[in-house]
Amino acid sequence: MTYERPEGGAERLGVLNDAGEVVDLGPGSMQGLIADWPERADEVAAAAATRSGLPLGAVRLLAPVRPRNNIMCVGKNYAAHAQEFAGSGFDASQQQAVPDAPVIFTKALSSLVGPDDAVRVSADDTGTSDYEGELAVVLGPDQEVFGYTIVNDLTVRELQRRHVQFFVGKSAATYCPMGPVLVTADEVPDVRELWVRTTVNGEPRQAAPVADLIFDVATLVATIGAYVRLEAGDVIATGTPAGVGIGFDPPKYLCPGDVVEVSVDGIGTLRNTCV
Amino acid sequence: MTYERPEGGAERLGVLNDAGEVVDLGPGSMQGLIADWPERADEVAAAAATRSGLPLGAVRLLAPVRPRNNIMCVGKNYAAHAQEFAGSGFDASQQQAVPDAPVIFTKALSSLVGPDDAVRVSADDTGTSDYEGELAVVLGPDQEVFGYTIVNDLTVRELQRRHVQFFVGKSAATYCPMGPVLVTADEVPDVRELWVRTTVNGEPRQAAPVADLIFDVATLVATIGAYVRLEAGDVIATGTPAGVGIGFDPPKYLCPGDVVEVSVDGIGTLRNTCV
Repeated sequence: MTYERPEGGAERLGVLNDAGEVVDLGPGSMQGLIADWPERADEVAAAAATRSGLPLGAVRLLAPVRPRNNIMCVGKNYAAHAQEFAGSGFDASQQQAVPDAPVIFTKALSSLVGPDDAVRVSADDTGTSDYEGELAVVLGPDQEVFGYTIVNDLTVRELQRRHVQFFVGKSAATYCPMGPVLVTADEVPDVRELWVRTTVNGEPRQAAPVADLIFDVATLVATIGAYVRLEAGDVIATGTPAGVGIGFDPPKYLCPGDVVEVSVDGIGTLRNTCV
Repeated sequence: MTYERPEGGAERLGVLNDAGEVVDLGPGSMQGLIADWPERADEVAAAAATRSGLPLGAVRLLAPVRPRNNIMCVGKNYAAHAQEFAGSGFDASQQQAVPDAPVIFTKALSSLVGPDDAVRVSADDTGTSDYEGELAVVLGPDQEVFGYTIVNDLTVRELQRRHVQFFVGKSAATYCPMGPVLVTADEVPDVRELWVRTTVNGEPRQAAPVADLIFDVATLVATIGAYVRLEAGDVIATGTPAGVGIGFDPPKYLCPGDVVEVSVDGIGTLRNTCV
């Protein structure tokens, strides 16, 4: 994980021990840790196994990794969501509901926030802000999957429609919460068995297993990586299941005060409050 | 400008003097210089006015700025190009030839190269690599235009079509040459009077004044900046005029050995060789 101490100061790395405490690994960036992982994995495991730390609630968690390069996202990668999105009228970019090839776009790096940060939906003058809970893949130096985290791919639907290409509608400041932690790939026996679940104010909205992805994790990494140079710490949010706000009639957009929780088995819950 | 000394080493900043020599401003990044510009502008002007430097041909120019955040691009921002692109069949993303709102997408930061670097079109197994010469805007810390440079928004047309959202088709490694230099906004009396011109192996392909932009520079910055937090050093490539390779029948795609030159009045020529 990446965090700040209660008194503030520089970004630090930490690892959870069995007691759920944050064991400090010193100042640094997750990108650096990923690059040095072959030399540092044993130290991190030993720290988690033997040391005590700060209570999780005492620190401010930050986005586990700020990519040097890109936050990539996949559009319409669960069949049921592809159908609800096609039916919403908000996709100005494609006729086909279910795509032949992965639809890849990016979110601005300046939209990235941590699990303890607020999402400023009040800044959206179109009033069409929507959640998209997603499993996110964090890449290692050789285009392999280093680990997993959670991204809420928040979207201003009206801007997504208006600008055709999705970047503007996906990139408002605070619209990319990530976290709470990064789980290394070796801790996930079979990613397909994980479920992605989203609630708004406790009400269940999205729930699907990663096995339902149209383009699975390996296909996404291989397809993008065949042309784009992927770098250590780059993030691919793998797509969102059915149940987004625009899938309802009338749509259920986010309002100030709403609490959105995205959970993935084994990673935890990414909880952000809208303001 | 950003450059490397003939013997290599760290990235350095420089400024051209009246003799066309590279006057050294020390190691550093253009992002840092933009952030410190109010304090450093006089020093840079004095260096250009009074000091001698290395011949331009003796240094290796790098992309003038590597954005911390995003390389943003605008699709279909010259009416004549919008028409030729619609006629090509490669736009899977929109019915309208001329958009109502700017169509914004990004190129991977890992696609960025300098004016002395090669473009690896031989890595494109679809054989549909195309040029797009563009004026690029470099932003200052308060979402104002800090300066201008040139971007060749190289594109694999088949991937642009296949993936619907443009990111993959726009982001192959080496497909974002930028340079040769950054010209500060105060040196450009009226950006609308600049012409963008592209040649391939000396054959004229594109030529249009910036005045022909459908969404002008101020509109682009305001429209994107209304939702996306733009940061110092972010780049917006403003769109390409008519005359890209897919506008011809049959299309004129790039081949190894081709030399693409994009020129903008007052900025210079961005010349890259395809390999």
